[in-house]
Amino acid sequence: MKLTLVGCGLLGGSLAAAWRRAGRVSTVVGYDRDPAQAAQAVARGIADASAATLGEAVHGAGVVVLATPVGAFQSLCAQLAPLVGSGTIITDVGSTKAGVIHEARAALGGGFARFVPAHPIAGGALPGIDNASADLFAERWVIITPQADTDAAALQWVEDSWRASGATVERMEAAEHDRIFAAVSHLPHLLAFALVDLIAAQPDGARKLQFAGAGFRDFTRIAASDAVMWRDIALANAPALGAELAAFRGQLDRLQAAVDGADGSALRYLFERASRVRREQRFGATLQDTYDD
Amino acid sequence: MKLTLVGCGLLGGSLAAAWRRAGRVSTVVGYDRDPAQAAQAVARGIADASAATLGEAVHGAGVVVLATPVGAFQSLCAQLAPLVGSGTIITDVGSTKAGVIHEARAALGGGFARFVPAHPIAGGALPGIDNASADLFAERWVIITPQADTDAAALQWVEDSWRASGATVERMEAAEHDRIFAAVSHLPHLLAFALVDLIAAQPDGARKLQFAGAGFRDFTRIAASDAVMWRDIALANAPALGAELAAFRGQLDRLQAAVDGADGSALRYLFERASRVRREQRFGATLQDTYDD
Repeated sequence: MKLTLVGCGLLGGSLAAAWRRAGRVSTVVGYDRDPAQAAQAVARGIADASAATLGEAVHGAGVVVLATPVGAFQSLCAQLAPLVGSGTIITDVGSTKAGVIHEARAALGGGFARFVPAHPIAGGALPGIDNASADLFAERWVIITPQADTDAAALQWVEDSWRASGATVERMEAAEHDRIFAAVSHLPHLLAFALVDLIAAQPDGARKLQFAGAGFRDFTRIAASDAVMWRDIALANAPALGAELAAFRGQLDRLQAAVDGADGSALRYLFERASRVRREQRFGATLQDTYDD
Repeated sequence: MKLTLVGCGLLGGSLAAAWRRAGRVSTVVGYDRDPAQAAQAVARGIADASAATLGEAVHGAGVVVLATPVGAFQSLCAQLAPLVGSGTIITDVGSTKAGVIHEARAALGGGFARFVPAHPIAGGALPGIDNASADLFAERWVIITPQADTDAAALQWVEDSWRASGATVERMEAAEHDRIFAAVSHLPHLLAFALVDLIAAQPDGARKLQFAGAGFRDFTRIAASDAVMWRDIALANAPALGAELAAFRGQLDRLQAAVDGADGSALRYLFERASRVRREQRFGATLQDTYDD
């Protein structure tokens, strides 16, 4: 089984390493718009070879994995349609699903049946193939959003590959996926970017950042994420993200009124509910809360 | 030198342990509205004795440390004024300064000259005397906001005690302190509380939280903080916090327009600036970025 990795970054590289270690694929060919990334995948032993063109990369592939920013998926699917064999599985690691499915269906035509939309809930603030690891998906969720016309065998093969990598597979509707991750992932990224940008643009921004402590460090860790990747996610999931952002702005309107009006009861009520929920929240075993301060 | 600790929690307990280890104080008496906390300070060896009343606690004290939520400071200062000796230093660990200084000046009268306003930039998501440690302040900032009439010897003694605890002391104006920490501490706490509360209140909130990953975990860690402590901070620093919140809401108005209008350029510009600033940000040696995902 040959795997073609399109986009040689943290997630794709980790997937290739994990699926190979689990015996799901025997050969990995890396392709990246930046040839240095594909070369690095080979240097790290994650890929057996790199390819200069997408056509060369997917030749004879049993599975093609899209692991670029989601904004590139539509063009890639259009290029893949005439290149892949009739039995080739295509899957992805994109953070949004409804938009990706819509674009893949339009671009792949009949080949869409073998497109298995997937989103592993794993990552890391240290990006790139250099930080890829076959262990990245241990005890993490992988969300699969199959369609009515998704080929059952392709679906089974992708889900089995994820389980063999240590992940827990959960199927759900694409729309629900997008609502969930708009709230617990996309909006927090937007807010972290927004806060760092706001402070950095202030005349005394550098002095403010000088005294930031552990709370700020953790709150803004995700603001170090890749800008293009997150621009693509914000655009691809704009309906759900826009709705969550609007709701959050309403929440801040109420908080502004409480702060300006010295409404200690309202502040305490909201803080207490949030604090209780957050203290009771359980993450996976590999995601337990860490405190170094 | 006898230290009276008013409020036996994480910060106060750590201060008492650090100052004693550094030889700055020889005796510690703990007082807390909740006698069990003062008893626990004794049980942990942080205090030599607990006191049932504030009067008993401060009898013969060389230094009194206010380490309760800041909302209790005004009442405590009013009670302390007739109790403390003419040479007794009073200091605090409160997260806001201008409001605290205003209240302390009014309540302490002539004794205000020996009030040294201080804010150690240290803490932890695990609260309480059980997590107190003499190491908490190593390589952390302690901000001191002395007034024109602050007694020079009292100021020197408090600053020397902090330096002896491993902290780096920085003097600044109270108003600047409040602006800085409104931006890098108080606003992030407000946002973290607001997001967790928003999601928890949604019909599908529990399902959303079920799939939250490492980004959400770190972003919301500070939402597990104590509600009363943060209500008091929000109220005490309302002018600066309200201004930062208003600016942040303006930032979100622009982001909403960019998301709804599919303005990828605006999103990428903002994300890139934030990402660059955050990647370049250096924290203290004991606060380096940690990545476990």
